[in-house]
Amino acid sequence: MQHSMLGGKRLRGALVMRSAAAFGLDPTHVMPAACAFEMLHAATLVHDDLPCIDDSDLRRGRPSCHAAFDEHTALLAGDALIIASFGRLATLGRTCDPARSLRVIEEFAAFSGAAGLIGGEQADIIGEGLAPDGELLRYIHENKTAKLICAACRTGAILAGASEPQIETISDYGMALGLLFQVTDDILDVTGDEDVLGKPTGADADADKQTYPAAIGLEGARDEARELAARAVEIAADLPGEVEFFQSIAELVVIREK
Amino acid sequence: MQHSMLGGKRLRGALVMRSAAAFGLDPTHVMPAACAFEMLHAATLVHDDLPCIDDSDLRRGRPSCHAAFDEHTALLAGDALIIASFGRLATLGRTCDPARSLRVIEEFAAFSGAAGLIGGEQADIIGEGLAPDGELLRYIHENKTAKLICAACRTGAILAGASEPQIETISDYGMALGLLFQVTDDILDVTGDEDVLGKPTGADADADKQTYPAAIGLEGARDEARELAARAVEIAADLPGEVEFFQSIAELVVIREK
Repeated sequence: MQHSMLGGKRLRGALVMRSAAAFGLDPTHVMPAACAFEMLHAATLVHDDLPCIDDSDLRRGRPSCHAAFDEHTALLAGDALIIASFGRLATLGRTCDPARSLRVIEEFAAFSGAAGLIGGEQADIIGEGLAPDGELLRYIHENKTAKLICAACRTGAILAGASEPQIETISDYGMALGLLFQVTDDILDVTGDEDVLGKPTGADADADKQTYPAAIGLEGARDEARELAARAVEIAADLPGEVEFFQSIAELVVIREK
Repeated sequence: MQHSMLGGKRLRGALVMRSAAAFGLDPTHVMPAACAFEMLHAATLVHDDLPCIDDSDLRRGRPSCHAAFDEHTALLAGDALIIASFGRLATLGRTCDPARSLRVIEEFAAFSGAAGLIGGEQADIIGEGLAPDGELLRYIHENKTAKLICAACRTGAILAGASEPQIETISDYGMALGLLFQVTDDILDVTGDEDVLGKPTGADADADKQTYPAAIGLEGARDEARELAARAVEIAADLPGEVEFFQSIAELVVIREK
């Protein structure tokens, strides 16, 4: 569990904390939620790397969990990380409103489960080898990646007591940022440097996955990324507080190399 | 997910509801928690049956999840069931006190995670092929099986607003019942009928697992089961309300054939 928690950009955790701060809550009060997002994210990477899914031996520049230990350890470490992420969320009641904390847990489960991240992973596997399909591609990207990033943004806002329209605004920002993140992930699988990325490149093409470069070409994917970033920046302008953080994150993701 | 939720004895769900009722709460108010225990339990069976752990093709009298579908589907279905179990728990705030609901989620994670059920599973695998070791055996049984059954008993009591001494009493009952359940599980792996059990027998001996029959023989294991049942019955006498239910469950587990 520890092995697989090290490294990473901590994007999701940072979004939870910055979103809480934007709506006036001390970000240290939402630290358990920030940790929970990073733990759940790490768990999905551990399981994703297993032989029965992506069979990938490299992650965050180090051996993936099953490569460092063994397959059953990686399976159970992933399970324990998922469980621990909810265990952390359940401690939110000590620093935040209990009813808001319960809503956050319910949303975390909804955005990460069968109708969210896990559903997107299954669709990702089902889509392997199929002809490029824009609707399926969008479903995969929204669910596999964008929903958890969106949930991170919503979580800080909910815990801070933001109004429903404010939560919807940061939710729209999170979906745009999340889609942007996955489009650039697709692009980096084609153009990225394995040493910088810390994971193998070319894996999507090898598995014949549904990706933006496969569907609309590398230039089309780059246009899509720039459009999504522009949309995220525009939505972020309506947020209170630290607008610059949310805007610059979107601009950084477009040019990210890892 | 649906495939793996069908069948089963619903012992854990029943304990949640009966425990709530014993302490004066309408058991329908804790239905989400009862479902959560059954979902988490089903998820651990799905992952336990995978080729990298027990490699078992039969469960609850039907093909196990990866046998009915495929390995990645079983992996993701298990993940989604774990997540969904917490999603259900998070809805408890609608019928129960929010602070108690958060405590239940925190305990559910603690009893099922790395320091509970999942840790017990890892120890179970590590123990394969080692000489029988009473301390390790006890650790495995307590964590792999007893803690979730104990948590089910605690959950109903906590949600019903039982006092801390009352929660400790039903907790002790749950640990005794849980240990009893696993000892009889060990025995049935030796003496059981595969058609009645709905899962393969002889698997523990094949994998050279830490079990009571391996450590102290079949008769020793049966004595241990009778002792644990007697202890559970004795503790249950101190519970309020439906003492008979808790006592008869312990007596039924001793003679169970599935």
